[in-house]
Amino acid sequence: MKIDVGKKILSANEEYAFKNSKVFVERKVLCLNMISSPGSGKTTILTRTINELKDKIRIGVIEGDVQTDMDAEKIRATGAPAVQIETGGACHLSAAQVNRALGELPVDRLDLIFIENVGNLVCPSAFELGETGKMAVLSVAEGDDKPAKYPAIFARSKALLINKTDLLAGGLIDFDMDRAKADARKLNKEIKIFAISAKTGDGMDKWHEWLKEQIEAVQRGPS
Amino acid sequence: MKIDVGKKILSANEEYAFKNSKVFVERKVLCLNMISSPGSGKTTILTRTINELKDKIRIGVIEGDVQTDMDAEKIRATGAPAVQIETGGACHLSAAQVNRALGELPVDRLDLIFIENVGNLVCPSAFELGETGKMAVLSVAEGDDKPAKYPAIFARSKALLINKTDLLAGGLIDFDMDRAKADARKLNKEIKIFAISAKTGDGMDKWHEWLKEQIEAVQRGPS
Repeated sequence: MKIDVGKKILSANEEYAFKNSKVFVERKVLCLNMISSPGSGKTTILTRTINELKDKIRIGVIEGDVQTDMDAEKIRATGAPAVQIETGGACHLSAAQVNRALGELPVDRLDLIFIENVGNLVCPSAFELGETGKMAVLSVAEGDDKPAKYPAIFARSKALLINKTDLLAGGLIDFDMDRAKADARKLNKEIKIFAISAKTGDGMDKWHEWLKEQIEAVQRGPS
Repeated sequence: MKIDVGKKILSANEEYAFKNSKVFVERKVLCLNMISSPGSGKTTILTRTINELKDKIRIGVIEGDVQTDMDAEKIRATGAPAVQIETGGACHLSAAQVNRALGELPVDRLDLIFIENVGNLVCPSAFELGETGKMAVLSVAEGDDKPAKYPAIFARSKALLINKTDLLAGGLIDFDMDRAKADARKLNKEIKIFAISAKTGDGMDKWHEWLKEQIEAVQRGPS
């Protein structure tokens, strides 16, 4: 009997994640897997980012929701291609679902694909989709204690967008920006943090610059 | 061979849920399983509710979090007994965890036990803990589309608290209260909805009245 110890047995999800990652590397497309609580503003961030960058960057979106295709409709209104996945109860997207969605996107004509995962700060961080990197979104309305209480996604993200900073102006929300940033950095020294308001556009320029750098890095390929 | 078709095979979670529900029924304690996204204000609702009702109702709390015991500390500061469960990554509380926590609470000296589930609008709704009933919390900052997008918990809840109504005053948040209520009622005709601000106390009186009615119903026993 011959045992092939060199072959790692992959789960079905890992198999599809590997296939997806090959697509992103070979086609030189940046893919960001966006993870947050429900209502942190992911879709608004995406529509504003697409509208502000569409002359420079070709963006496509894979939308994950438990139910409804409202978010894909909002993305399509910007002119960007979007594929909706309804998980029908499941709390995260799977790599197989993303693989099918990629078949419906014009991948060869895109620089950047956002995967908007199901609104859930816990489960999606445990499922690889083959993405180039994960990113987290946290709304100031959720509170500055979330990196400490839900560490996994902050530990695994390349970037963190702290959104809805416009709500801080009214003095109605207690959110200690320094604490949230320090707690996220305690979990992840490399994480890039951008405080933004997708509603007013405040702070979006630095996030866009970072996106452009990430796209350039992917297009250059491995160094 | 004799096959006992009358015996239903329960999952491990259902077994513990059944044990817990026996405790609540026999000791005539109302148990509410509170489910929401991270940062909807569950802990603030609980501390304010306990402080306002502690002369009339004896309340205990089981706190579920992925990590940290910050929430149990906040509850204990009110004088109410609280047990923290850290799930260490899991996205929902299990009935076995609640069963162990009940052993640490003075159940015989309580009228009401709140289970503050892990902040997650998807997974906890699928796991029975033996509670008298589920309830949902939705912050206006999360958006009025959440009942449509995450229907399961709204379909299964006895009550819905729409929290952080104080944020509506500044005009900074677009939240169509009628739409949120109508969508929740479309999923669940019986759901009681209370628009509250746990920060200012606005609307809390009706929620307290409802709690008292629920406790009286449990203390009367099955009719």
